[in-house]
Amino acid sequence: MESIRIGLIGWGTVGCGMLRTLNDNAREIHARLGVRLDVVRVADLDLETPRPVAVDPKILTRSAQDILDDPSIHIVVELIGGIEPARSFILKALERGKHVVTANKALLAHHGNEIFDFASRCGRSVGFEASVAGGIPLLKALREGLSANRLDTLFGILNGTANYILTRMTENGLPFPEALAEAQRQGYAEADPTLDVDGIDTAHKLAIAGAMGFGTPIRFDQVYVEGIRDIDPLDVQFASEFGYRLKLLAIARRTDGQLELRVHPTLIPEQHVLASVRGAYNAVHIHGNAVGNIMLYGLGAGMMPTGSAVVADLVDLARDMTLGIVNRVPPLGFLPEHTADIPVKPMDDVVTRYYFRFSAVDRPGVLSKISGILGTNHISIAAVIQKGREVEGAVPIVMLTHEAVEKDVRRSLEAIDLLDIVRGTTRLIRIEDRAENTAPRA
Amino acid sequence: MESIRIGLIGWGTVGCGMLRTLNDNAREIHARLGVRLDVVRVADLDLETPRPVAVDPKILTRSAQDILDDPSIHIVVELIGGIEPARSFILKALERGKHVVTANKALLAHHGNEIFDFASRCGRSVGFEASVAGGIPLLKALREGLSANRLDTLFGILNGTANYILTRMTENGLPFPEALAEAQRQGYAEADPTLDVDGIDTAHKLAIAGAMGFGTPIRFDQVYVEGIRDIDPLDVQFASEFGYRLKLLAIARRTDGQLELRVHPTLIPEQHVLASVRGAYNAVHIHGNAVGNIMLYGLGAGMMPTGSAVVADLVDLARDMTLGIVNRVPPLGFLPEHTADIPVKPMDDVVTRYYFRFSAVDRPGVLSKISGILGTNHISIAAVIQKGREVEGAVPIVMLTHEAVEKDVRRSLEAIDLLDIVRGTTRLIRIEDRAENTAPRA
Repeated sequence: MESIRIGLIGWGTVGCGMLRTLNDNAREIHARLGVRLDVVRVADLDLETPRPVAVDPKILTRSAQDILDDPSIHIVVELIGGIEPARSFILKALERGKHVVTANKALLAHHGNEIFDFASRCGRSVGFEASVAGGIPLLKALREGLSANRLDTLFGILNGTANYILTRMTENGLPFPEALAEAQRQGYAEADPTLDVDGIDTAHKLAIAGAMGFGTPIRFDQVYVEGIRDIDPLDVQFASEFGYRLKLLAIARRTDGQLELRVHPTLIPEQHVLASVRGAYNAVHIHGNAVGNIMLYGLGAGMMPTGSAVVADLVDLARDMTLGIVNRVPPLGFLPEHTADIPVKPMDDVVTRYYFRFSAVDRPGVLSKISGILGTNHISIAAVIQKGREVEGAVPIVMLTHEAVEKDVRRSLEAIDLLDIVRGTTRLIRIEDRAENTAPRA
Repeated sequence: MESIRIGLIGWGTVGCGMLRTLNDNAREIHARLGVRLDVVRVADLDLETPRPVAVDPKILTRSAQDILDDPSIHIVVELIGGIEPARSFILKALERGKHVVTANKALLAHHGNEIFDFASRCGRSVGFEASVAGGIPLLKALREGLSANRLDTLFGILNGTANYILTRMTENGLPFPEALAEAQRQGYAEADPTLDVDGIDTAHKLAIAGAMGFGTPIRFDQVYVEGIRDIDPLDVQFASEFGYRLKLLAIARRTDGQLELRVHPTLIPEQHVLASVRGAYNAVHIHGNAVGNIMLYGLGAGMMPTGSAVVADLVDLARDMTLGIVNRVPPLGFLPEHTADIPVKPMDDVVTRYYFRFSAVDRPGVLSKISGILGTNHISIAAVIQKGREVEGAVPIVMLTHEAVEKDVRRSLEAIDLLDIVRGTTRLIRIEDRAENTAPRA
């Protein structure tokens, strides 16, 4: 085998990154493999819009079917995103005996189990390193590098847009709408930012990385998701007075034989290594029972970083193909027959610490009423700040709790928000500062 | 194949970590592989000293030969360290058709090329993830995860002992001898700390990681090495006034068709992600032409983290063995016949920025004489601080330069140190703050 023939479906940003990487680094890649990776066909509905990376017009086509029907193509790279027709293209490619590489996290979050199962029945592989954390070789690390470990936690900053917005809110005191508008001007956020700022994209990635890290099937529908739209810079500022930084975290944690899978704005100690992840960067912090704390950091999106992850998958596939083997490592790292079905912990049962900001009238007895309700619900207070600044006729009272159960917190806040001394809805942000996930001080 | 039979030579700290990991995570490892990893023989000269992990006395032996001679053993794990007899054991194991896993960086830095070549001729594999950066899956990332990249730079904090000492000197103002003594009390430094504090261990690891990252043979004898013994807390403090943090860095950088390979105390900007790597942690920051900036962070030493890397190699080998393949990925990531012999840049020709501290008598004209010599040698000054504090009858003058050539710097300092207005030897610390290696601000 002198060359491996690749068909690309989707000549967009990541497709261009893949093409440029293959071209710029052709010599290095050949020195690794001894075979060439040749893109022989590129399909896209739009062939007119100028792209940063040119393609020989002879190999362009408007029809993905041309690639699926070409028996000389070994690997189909799907980079169109979205559920359909991506799903059908991938299933068809596998059925025709082609391997598949994709960056499509939404598709894998929803249909990954089905696709991996079908690939296995077809004796073909699916590479998807680019689907989570872009250029960071996270899935390779979870599946192979950390294979000796039983993971306790995985904390991820998995969406560069949300992290960029939170960084601007934290460092420049911008309110959310302004930070979002700036992210859009800078090209970090799309015109419709829903997937990014509502945490959905992060949840797609957590569903995939969590399954791989903990040896379960992908269960996107069981991920709890909360975005960053409602974050007030005032809370970012109060939290920093307590020594916390706000991040949109993807959290997977093993507790009591269950697995927590949740995405929400989270306060982490400012000395935690994840706290220093700024701007559009991504990072994943893992605690394994043997390796201890590990963090991987890099760009989670963009033409070249994501293109680089797609090409790493192609190199991996090419190594297997030249040896005539398939699925050397199962897609999710564990043999499907040994997958553990650890139940996902209902969000109501999650135990963590909380930050609350109550807006209360400035009157004696307020603190006692609020803390009374919390106490009745088994929530004990770790710290309070009450400051004289009036916001909309009320005074903010900020509290940090000790560990509490989510459903007790919900019940308490419902009762508190009904008090006539309380104005508006209480703000809640979860805190993660358990010692095992914080890099020890020197 | 139901079980893979392993012989362990070296029942020390890392050996115990390997045994405990295999034991504690047996179920997970079996769920990944479908085969068992069985340690069937353990050799050590000392069988008496109590260990944190017990071994069935029936499989203990004082003779490594018992393992090498046992035809039922598939993989030999060498964890005795040092050059001999480790080298002979490994060569003998390969010759007898066994695969090898080792954590021995000193051996690989000196004899890696020979060992890999011999393994290839024997049709056997050598796993050595544990030899660099302990539990961090760095070599896997360089060899596979980042295979689509042409690397520009690799910066590593690769010795936890040195980083612990520098952290204490930075954060607590301790002089080197006290910080070292504390590291020894805490178990981070050995009684003879030479390998750690003189940069030799870091250089061993750089020789290996640099070869893998840049596709060259291992060339330990061409690594420039300088340790941290002569660091004065005064310089740590002055540097922090300029916004820099001091680290013992392993640097590999591609410039002008040559490769820099150097280990020395280095000032990095305090906002660089490596600057926040504290205590005994390791981290490696890589810039690849596709992926951009990437950092991997974790524990670079210790029983369990290093044991976890050894077991990851065993899992990798087991996957290949069950498929009947060998050397799926070449030991250094590139096919030996395509290895590039990029020349190592002589230290004299390296261009970087410098921090100098002169001890000069407090007299008019001193600054003009010093800067005159620097100017004659094409070294231009970026910043100066002169402060009134007298140290041993002289005043410290601290200068940061723009980019300069190492040999010009050496020549200048020789001339300056001969001036009668200068007392003692000028302190020199190299600075790395080129924009491409610094995580962009949001």
